[in-house]
Amino acid sequence: MPRYKLTIEYDGTPFAGWQWQDDAPTVQRVLTDAIAAFCGRTVKVAGAGRTDAGVHALGQVAHVDLAKDWRADRVRDAVNAHLRPHPVAVLSAEKVPDTFDARFSAKRRHYLYRIVNRRADLALERTRAWRLPRPLNVEAMHAAAQALVGKHDFTTFRSTECQAKSPVKTLDAFEVTRDGDEVQVKTTARSFLHNQVRSMVGSVVLVGDGKWSGDDLAAALAARNRAACGPVAPPEGLYLVSVDY
Amino acid sequence: MPRYKLTIEYDGTPFAGWQWQDDAPTVQRVLTDAIAAFCGRTVKVAGAGRTDAGVHALGQVAHVDLAKDWRADRVRDAVNAHLRPHPVAVLSAEKVPDTFDARFSAKRRHYLYRIVNRRADLALERTRAWRLPRPLNVEAMHAAAQALVGKHDFTTFRSTECQAKSPVKTLDAFEVTRDGDEVQVKTTARSFLHNQVRSMVGSVVLVGDGKWSGDDLAAALAARNRAACGPVAPPEGLYLVSVDY
Repeated sequence: MPRYKLTIEYDGTPFAGWQWQDDAPTVQRVLTDAIAAFCGRTVKVAGAGRTDAGVHALGQVAHVDLAKDWRADRVRDAVNAHLRPHPVAVLSAEKVPDTFDARFSAKRRHYLYRIVNRRADLALERTRAWRLPRPLNVEAMHAAAQALVGKHDFTTFRSTECQAKSPVKTLDAFEVTRDGDEVQVKTTARSFLHNQVRSMVGSVVLVGDGKWSGDDLAAALAARNRAACGPVAPPEGLYLVSVDY
Repeated sequence: MPRYKLTIEYDGTPFAGWQWQDDAPTVQRVLTDAIAAFCGRTVKVAGAGRTDAGVHALGQVAHVDLAKDWRADRVRDAVNAHLRPHPVAVLSAEKVPDTFDARFSAKRRHYLYRIVNRRADLALERTRAWRLPRPLNVEAMHAAAQALVGKHDFTTFRSTECQAKSPVKTLDAFEVTRDGDEVQVKTTARSFLHNQVRSMVGSVVLVGDGKWSGDDLAAALAARNRAACGPVAPPEGLYLVSVDY
């Protein structure tokens, strides 16, 4: 049973998220179906992270155990052929040792959140970014967000449905930059709590909008109380960029 | 009757091109309808260039004469409100003199053509770029394409349906660059013939694929014969970026 690591791109728009649901289209489900169509049996597709409905991936990672020792390039091409017309693509497949686990071997997960900061509605990027019409102070956002970096109890920035045992995580980076109309947040951690990135982005945007000070953001973190969180940023701006092993 | 210059972004995917058609959705038509809904009368929306079905715009330009002297920002916001849910957005509106004509005052038009050069199907960029699986030699493409720059009879790279009086145009630039998997063509001219950019890109790709030499491309241009053109590149990779006045 050789194990394969798959690196996967998807448009999250038509999916009810990554994780299998019996009554809704999910990325894990269309991948499971495509692999079954290719190799004749249903295998478990184990992903590095469970993205929510509408969240995109540039480089989600999954592992699968296949019954036959296929060439890795052949796995990539065949699974892609069976994924059509779903907006999911296997960018690469590689054989890995049985000890590799897409979820538990992950050392770092990188997320990108895209904001388009302009008055006009989005035409080309409609399901690809969050539009915010009021000018954001990106320097204030970046400066305030550094309070989130490090090891903290992130209860404030965690969905009430989060199943993680501990709310304590270590955030490695939270960078806010602007290029013209586009404001990008890049954040990295070994792992994130459910809705953590969107919760942090929504609160940091309050700082950029002048509604919160940097101290308000730090106080929200220190409150360790979900009620202290700002509005959660919408899913369409979020991308799982890559996973380090 | 103050005249307004509108700068417009659109996703070309759901439209049968820019130009009005009675029996199909076009960008000119949804703009005309939105302006009529806002100001109560139907006015002519005169565009800088007629993009084909599926072709996108980051900065198409149009002019309209409105009966009332609205504030330009108000025109932008009101037209955008009436454009929903179409993927068309007015990025800016400004008052211009009556001598300004979106088409005839244009000094330079800038187009971008996006190619994603990889094996895997496109997920996020499916209607936004042309995927080509075989590795393209971008240096050879760029070098060969310089033969197209300057004043030439572009009959080879012109749709048989092109209505321009003369096939002679002056191409200011044709730059081919690579950034990872993405190959970009940026080309500029005062004006282009119908299908000229897609025809040139399709032929230059033959050079990148090793099927044509640089001499073959020069010979195709010199032939002044539509039959000498390579396959026309598909519309989804093409963007009207901006128009200089």
